[in-house]
Amino acid sequence: MDAISVIRTKRDRGELGDEQIDWVIDAYTRGEVADEQMSALAMAILLNGMNRREIARWTAAMIASGERMDFSSLSRPTADKHSTGGVGDKITLPLAPLVAACGAAVPQLSGRGLGHTGGTLDKLESIPGWRALLSNEEMLHVLDTTGAVICAAGDGLAPADKKLYALRDVTGTVEAIPLIASSIMSKKIAEGTGSLVLDVKVGTGAFMKTIEDARELASTMVGLGTDHGVKTVALLTDMSTPLGLTAGNALEVRESVEVLAGGGPADVVELTIALAREMLDAAGVDADPAKALADGSAMDVWRRMIAAQGGDPDAELPVAREQHVIKAPASGVLTRLDAYGIGVAAWRLGAGRARKEDPVQAGAGVELHAKPGDQITEGQPLMTLHTDTPERFEYALQSVEGSYDIAAPGTAFTASPVVLERIA
Amino acid sequence: MDAISVIRTKRDRGELGDEQIDWVIDAYTRGEVADEQMSALAMAILLNGMNRREIARWTAAMIASGERMDFSSLSRPTADKHSTGGVGDKITLPLAPLVAACGAAVPQLSGRGLGHTGGTLDKLESIPGWRALLSNEEMLHVLDTTGAVICAAGDGLAPADKKLYALRDVTGTVEAIPLIASSIMSKKIAEGTGSLVLDVKVGTGAFMKTIEDARELASTMVGLGTDHGVKTVALLTDMSTPLGLTAGNALEVRESVEVLAGGGPADVVELTIALAREMLDAAGVDADPAKALADGSAMDVWRRMIAAQGGDPDAELPVAREQHVIKAPASGVLTRLDAYGIGVAAWRLGAGRARKEDPVQAGAGVELHAKPGDQITEGQPLMTLHTDTPERFEYALQSVEGSYDIAAPGTAFTASPVVLERIA
Repeated sequence: MDAISVIRTKRDRGELGDEQIDWVIDAYTRGEVADEQMSALAMAILLNGMNRREIARWTAAMIASGERMDFSSLSRPTADKHSTGGVGDKITLPLAPLVAACGAAVPQLSGRGLGHTGGTLDKLESIPGWRALLSNEEMLHVLDTTGAVICAAGDGLAPADKKLYALRDVTGTVEAIPLIASSIMSKKIAEGTGSLVLDVKVGTGAFMKTIEDARELASTMVGLGTDHGVKTVALLTDMSTPLGLTAGNALEVRESVEVLAGGGPADVVELTIALAREMLDAAGVDADPAKALADGSAMDVWRRMIAAQGGDPDAELPVAREQHVIKAPASGVLTRLDAYGIGVAAWRLGAGRARKEDPVQAGAGVELHAKPGDQITEGQPLMTLHTDTPERFEYALQSVEGSYDIAAPGTAFTASPVVLERIA
Repeated sequence: MDAISVIRTKRDRGELGDEQIDWVIDAYTRGEVADEQMSALAMAILLNGMNRREIARWTAAMIASGERMDFSSLSRPTADKHSTGGVGDKITLPLAPLVAACGAAVPQLSGRGLGHTGGTLDKLESIPGWRALLSNEEMLHVLDTTGAVICAAGDGLAPADKKLYALRDVTGTVEAIPLIASSIMSKKIAEGTGSLVLDVKVGTGAFMKTIEDARELASTMVGLGTDHGVKTVALLTDMSTPLGLTAGNALEVRESVEVLAGGGPADVVELTIALAREMLDAAGVDADPAKALADGSAMDVWRRMIAAQGGDPDAELPVAREQHVIKAPASGVLTRLDAYGIGVAAWRLGAGRARKEDPVQAGAGVELHAKPGDQITEGQPLMTLHTDTPERFEYALQSVEGSYDIAAPGTAFTASPVVLERIA
């Protein structure tokens, strides 16, 4: 077995055999297959595809590259959620304690932001004292005592994926559905959850720009989960405009706490409850998440979960040192507010990072004062930009410009639904 | 400018801009673009292609990565030849002195064998004392005094190509026509020859398996040469069966000397004269190569050229320590003798190398006693395998098996012509 023959098979539109896949993933993890060989293979996969059998085997080989966790000691059924990433997507923050309050255990291994999409861990780290890095024992303890845990994945989980993800990031091979699906699912299956709900984002602010691509990714992942005995459901959800009214780390924590307190923007509440219902259903738990939001039990779990990881749920959240308000240049109807443009602006303000090793600003980001469909009066605040480093305003403003449209007063507007499709 | 955006352009079937090409070749040569990025780009080029403008710019950027030689101080016009590589292809050995004897100057920068195809430098190194490595000054001196020089290309010539070639070799990205064409032509143009004849091999023993692929490669290279002011012509020639009766280093030198002495196999003589006529024509020299072979003047140049590089033209050539004769299993007509099978056998016997750093055996190889179309009597010697390491016989025999067919006596046979097409 050698790397060149595996590369040639896929390059020439052939089907990779089980032995080829097992060997190449193992040899790459061990360093016998070089980065330059794996990136050539990744490009061949991106351009020539993999069939369901190949993707399943590729995923299994990545799972086999590391340890598998086991939640069978827990008394509750486990339910996990994964989002493919979007702008203002803070849903994990209210969702995990909500589902835990309803009776499921929620082991939420999360990531950091890269590019214009935010990362759940970056958001939670804006809470003073909160720690993302837990040992497997600590993680199980938080999960067992509070019902939910949101933390970083350990190094032992699917190390082949960790290495391959970093490689894809610098070689233009991120946008391959077989590689995205196997990357997400190898981590989720190795993590050992019993059920999984996938939030596959569609639109300008998402990796999948079209509903067709999102559908293919979702059904590939649902198939992989099902094959590995994980009850898996996917919702395709809109990411043409930001979720809620904030994009940024502390800004999104504040909004999430509003949702847990029974308030918050309608789209965030709607998606949180829709995903909670799917998770509870997949885990076989009969409970009403709307009630757990209203009666404060979800907020109770949030406070215990944050405290169990060293965070102070009552602490003041960081606020950026400088603000810049963008005012409406005309009166009318806001017909477009582009998720990508706002995401890039938040990123440029310091909410995100350009390279993995960069720090993020806790207070930076974009606060929206209007959403598509809203009536606008000339001169009213449209959005506020937040940053500790005001020299970034100009660069962020370049991204905001051209990312919204205000149509003549009275123009009809139909909002996209939050949940577009369900795939199971 | 960054590597990922260049990779994405080609990945998404776009056309690379001049600035993108100039930047990526320069940055790769300097090590700013990493191997894993260049291999992803090479795979995208292999699968999505490059148009004529992109190939021309890519070639120009590789030429610009190093020095250019200049033969304008010579009193004779220069003529060079390049073969895309085949089995038993020793043509450069008799051809260079023959064309020099006719009045052109022949600067022949040659390579080593890799895989099943032999390398001109490996062949000449079987002559005791002969040196492949010359300084630019030594090269010009040999060329000026003898009319021909066959030596290794210096490190200063198209260093981008040197680095990229080694990368393609281990990443399954060798077989891309734009990359093959630009690799060959960047070296030839940087070398500074005034005219160039390309011998593009077609068949099982060649990189190009079909006449269509060979035609595309040939016309791409002719276009590149012409654009750079090098008079360029290509012959497509048959490589379904080995050239001549030998494949191996010293074995092929011996056969080449036979041709220079006025004898040798008909196909080797025919191709040598056909290529010589093209080279002389391209260089604008009016002379008859058949006469220079017959009157011994080509042999005189050979002897002086070998001696000028430290070789002893009268020395005994090395002979392998062990021989194994393969006898015909039946009587009839030899209808097929596969170039690839024989090339692999010679390689396995020790004539070639598996890795760049491996040594080759001077005496190893395959000696043929019959060629397609010949009448065969059961039990007659078909071929003799030569090696210093007889444990290799079995592995070589596996390649010989199945690489020839003997049809019933009286079966009609039509040989393929040596020269299939001419592209100018």
